[in-house]
Amino acid sequence: MRVVCLAGGVGGAKLADGLQRALEPGELTVVVNTGDDFERHSLLVCPDQDTVLYTLAGIAEPAQGWGIAGETWQVMSQLARLGEETWFRLGDKDVATHLFRTERLRGGKRLSAVALELCAALDVPSRILPMADEPVRTRVRTDDGWLDFQDYFVRLRQAPEVREVRFEGADLSSITPEVEEALAGAEAIVVAPSNPIVSIGPILAVPGIDEAIAAARARGVRSVGVSGIVGGKALRGPADRMMASLGDEPTALGVARRYASMGLLDVFVLDRLDESLARDVIALGLEVVVTETVMTDVGARVQLARDVLAATLPPA
Amino acid sequence: MRVVCLAGGVGGAKLADGLQRALEPGELTVVVNTGDDFERHSLLVCPDQDTVLYTLAGIAEPAQGWGIAGETWQVMSQLARLGEETWFRLGDKDVATHLFRTERLRGGKRLSAVALELCAALDVPSRILPMADEPVRTRVRTDDGWLDFQDYFVRLRQAPEVREVRFEGADLSSITPEVEEALAGAEAIVVAPSNPIVSIGPILAVPGIDEAIAAARARGVRSVGVSGIVGGKALRGPADRMMASLGDEPTALGVARRYASMGLLDVFVLDRLDESLARDVIALGLEVVVTETVMTDVGARVQLARDVLAATLPPA
Repeated sequence: MRVVCLAGGVGGAKLADGLQRALEPGELTVVVNTGDDFERHSLLVCPDQDTVLYTLAGIAEPAQGWGIAGETWQVMSQLARLGEETWFRLGDKDVATHLFRTERLRGGKRLSAVALELCAALDVPSRILPMADEPVRTRVRTDDGWLDFQDYFVRLRQAPEVREVRFEGADLSSITPEVEEALAGAEAIVVAPSNPIVSIGPILAVPGIDEAIAAARARGVRSVGVSGIVGGKALRGPADRMMASLGDEPTALGVARRYASMGLLDVFVLDRLDESLARDVIALGLEVVVTETVMTDVGARVQLARDVLAATLPPA
Repeated sequence: MRVVCLAGGVGGAKLADGLQRALEPGELTVVVNTGDDFERHSLLVCPDQDTVLYTLAGIAEPAQGWGIAGETWQVMSQLARLGEETWFRLGDKDVATHLFRTERLRGGKRLSAVALELCAALDVPSRILPMADEPVRTRVRTDDGWLDFQDYFVRLRQAPEVREVRFEGADLSSITPEVEEALAGAEAIVVAPSNPIVSIGPILAVPGIDEAIAAARARGVRSVGVSGIVGGKALRGPADRMMASLGDEPTALGVARRYASMGLLDVFVLDRLDESLARDVIALGLEVVVTETVMTDVGARVQLARDVLAATLPPA
């Protein structure tokens, strides 16, 4: 069953890992957010792509969910000695990924082609595709003005309230041949429990992606989304606060509303903790599946993946 | 006493270290060869500059003479895992230098400005200046054709015979304001015991440098060179074989001839082992100083530096 999963960072990577384990090799394509990408110390860093890459390659640091297991920090400590700002900490092994990627991009390759080379190099049986080859950069407006995403996310630790979000460059980007092909051949679409505003939002802002999803759904492919907000709290990151400060309800229902307003989903997956929201989600025109959505271990990733895959089948 | 030292890698770095220790802080300027520089894994790597930098910063690996003491190799091991060629091994701390430099160059800074920033960041009391801001790349012709310098030097471990040398881009380069100023203010010029062909040669191929040296000498500044070939053997690297295959005598006398033919020197420093060559060197029109030139420890560096500095004073 060919599945396309839209994903951001850690939460998306966990569900993608469950899907990869539940599917046959080669059946999964993950389309990752590139709005968080940025240039750092002359390198292009792609946090969401790499979190998914390391997770699907089985080399992710298990505790924190991002970075490579057994990472060391010599490059960073020397950069600090040279007086460089080191609030975005790149591990030594992680630097190798950025060197590999940056060299090829400077040589004229597309980001998508390099992403597939990285999958091959790390024996990942799935395809991890950036949402676009052109740079799209998420920026957030706070009370102190517009900030680059990582400035807000890492340096300021998401302390400021987000008043507005934009995806710079999205209007100049377009769906890649690889994403187009994946969606054209998809038998199911999964929207991972990632931040709906700054992880899934940028993907849908790339011209052509929403049309390709709509075209797949028009031919009967079902699209299933999982809430990354459970019990009114984001499982990770600032999604709840960001929803609230942008005027959305900071709950799974708020997430469902956002996706429903885009006509993105057939089915919405709620955590058992949010079962009481099912009626309101159904009222949005979505089917609802209630299950355990908090992926505390690999078994839970696979179980959620199976529940999601079951939901992509048309109701009997 | 303001001293300008022309230098390549390890041998040059050792004498520069002796000079830095023998002089007052700020009196030494080292003009380094950039012909060995190259792009690797998207980074600009400047081997000679960095060998001098680490040595003068007191952080060089003492045994091998290049690289940083206590270096680790995680970036390289991960690049190998990604399938990258790793014959040029960049240490993790060393990578930090290249990231620092590459970021600034991509931001439009000149190589000279970045070199001075690196000196400041590592509290080096001397000025380390690249011979040019424009890229100059040493290439060598072997029986298998033209090779990039590091391809010959590191990957092929200097196995092929060198039939011809050229400094690509030298004709489009020019003396930097920093080197010009240093030579205009110099009270002595030192040519380090580096490879005369591929370390000192490229420096002198930069338009404006030989004229600036000649101008300094015309106003009475003396120029002292040290042989990097002792007893018919290069202290390090392939200088002796390269001299031979290019038709020069592979001895200190051959080195003296090369420099004399360029009108570069007033004084040539011979090792005691080569004392018998003194007469022939004098016949080239050079003064000769015979001393210990093999810098086996820091004390020997300082002693040779003192001997060299003494030779820059006009004879009584």
